[in-house]
Amino acid sequence: MKIDPLLKQINPPPRLMMGPGPVNADPRVQRAMSADLLGQYDPAMTEYMNELMALYRVVFQTSNHWTFVIDGTSRAAIESSLVSLIEPGDKVLVPVFGRFGHLLTEIASRCGAEVISISKEWGQVFSPEEIAEALDKYQPKVLAICQGDTSTTMNQPLEAIGKLCAERGVLSYVDATASIGGNELLIGDWEIDICTAGLQKCLGGPSGSGPITISDKAAEHIQNRWHVEKGIEPAGFVPGKLSRIQSNYFDLAMVMAYWSPQRLNHHTEATSMLYCARECARCIVEEGLENVLARHTLGSKAMVAGLQVMGLKLFGNLDYKMSNVTGVYIPEVVDGEAVRRDMLHYFGVEIGTSFGPLHGKIWRIGAMGYNARKDAILRTLNALSSCLRLHGYKAPGDDPALAALEIFKQAEAAPAEIEISPVSKTS
Amino acid sequence: MKIDPLLKQINPPPRLMMGPGPVNADPRVQRAMSADLLGQYDPAMTEYMNELMALYRVVFQTSNHWTFVIDGTSRAAIESSLVSLIEPGDKVLVPVFGRFGHLLTEIASRCGAEVISISKEWGQVFSPEEIAEALDKYQPKVLAICQGDTSTTMNQPLEAIGKLCAERGVLSYVDATASIGGNELLIGDWEIDICTAGLQKCLGGPSGSGPITISDKAAEHIQNRWHVEKGIEPAGFVPGKLSRIQSNYFDLAMVMAYWSPQRLNHHTEATSMLYCARECARCIVEEGLENVLARHTLGSKAMVAGLQVMGLKLFGNLDYKMSNVTGVYIPEVVDGEAVRRDMLHYFGVEIGTSFGPLHGKIWRIGAMGYNARKDAILRTLNALSSCLRLHGYKAPGDDPALAALEIFKQAEAAPAEIEISPVSKTS
Repeated sequence: MKIDPLLKQINPPPRLMMGPGPVNADPRVQRAMSADLLGQYDPAMTEYMNELMALYRVVFQTSNHWTFVIDGTSRAAIESSLVSLIEPGDKVLVPVFGRFGHLLTEIASRCGAEVISISKEWGQVFSPEEIAEALDKYQPKVLAICQGDTSTTMNQPLEAIGKLCAERGVLSYVDATASIGGNELLIGDWEIDICTAGLQKCLGGPSGSGPITISDKAAEHIQNRWHVEKGIEPAGFVPGKLSRIQSNYFDLAMVMAYWSPQRLNHHTEATSMLYCARECARCIVEEGLENVLARHTLGSKAMVAGLQVMGLKLFGNLDYKMSNVTGVYIPEVVDGEAVRRDMLHYFGVEIGTSFGPLHGKIWRIGAMGYNARKDAILRTLNALSSCLRLHGYKAPGDDPALAALEIFKQAEAAPAEIEISPVSKTS
Repeated sequence: MKIDPLLKQINPPPRLMMGPGPVNADPRVQRAMSADLLGQYDPAMTEYMNELMALYRVVFQTSNHWTFVIDGTSRAAIESSLVSLIEPGDKVLVPVFGRFGHLLTEIASRCGAEVISISKEWGQVFSPEEIAEALDKYQPKVLAICQGDTSTTMNQPLEAIGKLCAERGVLSYVDATASIGGNELLIGDWEIDICTAGLQKCLGGPSGSGPITISDKAAEHIQNRWHVEKGIEPAGFVPGKLSRIQSNYFDLAMVMAYWSPQRLNHHTEATSMLYCARECARCIVEEGLENVLARHTLGSKAMVAGLQVMGLKLFGNLDYKMSNVTGVYIPEVVDGEAVRRDMLHYFGVEIGTSFGPLHGKIWRIGAMGYNARKDAILRTLNALSSCLRLHGYKAPGDDPALAALEIFKQAEAAPAEIEISPVSKTS
């Protein structure tokens, strides 16, 4: 009997996703998504919305009241921030150190900004002095920057940058999609105005919900652009003094009203993804954010040790490497895409290719979220070792999985010695 | 031992959601969302994307190649359509017959359109002559209209309207969020250019993914606005002749490239919601779209019969009532919100309030998607009957659940006599 493939149940092949993200979701998160639905204004639903706000204050390390999720991917959360902050003609400074910096320039430009970008060679990050100089030179209204840019595996230090902006009255926006949960991020202490994230990297969920946190200062600016849509204006409604936001879906003033006790009707909350986002944060709070960060840091050390034993050269300035992803040069004797294909099809392990100037030069190998685990890292190293051998690369050293295991064993013997972030220089 | 509520598992109270949507998801859809994840460019993932395209061609009744999903709620799909069609200064005609018509004017206006709206009293729909006259008078570039507007429960006939637009070279956009799957919708035959939907009404899923279909003509217009973001331009890239789309996330030219064999990197597809959207369509194709429509029509007749037995008066022009939702006047002796609260808290059944001019006057009672079922309808009628009695309304007639059951029994005896759409005039 032949069954039309369209009528077959979803039945994905088993994959271990060890690229730069998305990665496998935590099984608890997958199960939470299957919970029964609730109406938008059901008291049980609004209580879950409030709990989600409290949970993400922990994840973002902030006391910002306006901490919630955007219904869309991490890119939706980025655009909602920029389109709500930026009025046409505003000057926006974007320090670009990888592909996702380019994305910020692109989105800011579509919002009508006069975009000024400064650049770093891929594999490096900006110093606070460079940022301060650019802020003083260009005097932007908004600074938009990535924390971790997976295209280069670099993690931009932000501690000084938030404060530099605050001192100058510049609104700061940070895209922490790829770094949050795996690298230290202190939104409150660092005085960052808006930060957005995604679930599909270190938070252990699928793509499709974008956590966001907004300072009171940024919220006030956005609320000055408050223009409720026709047909649902509340009684006594007075529009904001500033220009209307050019998107309805991404109008954070309206989205905040939806997440307030007023519950002003806007989109229909994506309930299953809300359950999912709540569960991602719940798992992190249960494990303890510090433990989650330490788990990623340890995973990075172990992965690096295994790659180095195979004689592979790491990419970029390792003082600033993200803990959750490692760039590694493809040995000249192998075809990088053929190795990736064989890892996927023979071993069920996915590693990442790369973009732009690094395309064909490096692989990006992640260990993040639910996959920042000993067994996942050992399996990845073994599969890579076998595929490299299959393609004619002769590794010089010992067993890479055992080299990584040694790092885990050392950490088990002396857990206090794992530094959270940045990882120490290892090559 | 006290557990922090933030650390508790998701455990929603059981609810039967019989409002205008969102409603309960089909359990098969809930389970599909828990399937393991895949990488964005994994061949198994892109195959699921292709299957989804084929499945939604059935749901939309079209052969349009460009049939896929937007990662966001139904409102995201609306905005992506309008912002990709409309260039600043374009004339857009919006016939408004309820709240969601206002939403279309609002979004079109934020896209920079010169918006012209024509209005109908809530509870009525437009005739083809009225639309033709407005098209000739205003000569818009785009016509944007709802099919079913749940705010009024009316279903706008579209058969003539798509053709009227096509004859005049006007691009037609239809928001079928609330009507698709429960009311006849023939995108191909009716020559509609873009139509968008949501999962949370008759398709039996949660909110969070927005199906969309785009005619070749509309796709060509959108592709003329093709401007790839900096950092990922393909070799030999030539930007489109028309203006760049003002949103990156909703840039359908880029989203189409992502859904093409080129797989140009854009957002990270929301994999779990993709599984979910695929399963919604799979269940419909398995049941047969005609059977799904007939199930909704029968549910409507049964619900109407039950409400009428209680002496309740129905809202609007019943020749054009959506099959999946019924507006019913709140009896003067009861407090409508108190009745709704008691139905939810004592009986676990949710029915809908209403917006704007109808607020406080009617309830909206749905039976759609997975909930367009005999047991769900009988339970709702019984719960409403009990709560009306509790609040002092004395129903004149017989048992409303038995009146509805009689309709189901008649249909079982003579199934061929159920007309699909519109429902016949019943009061």
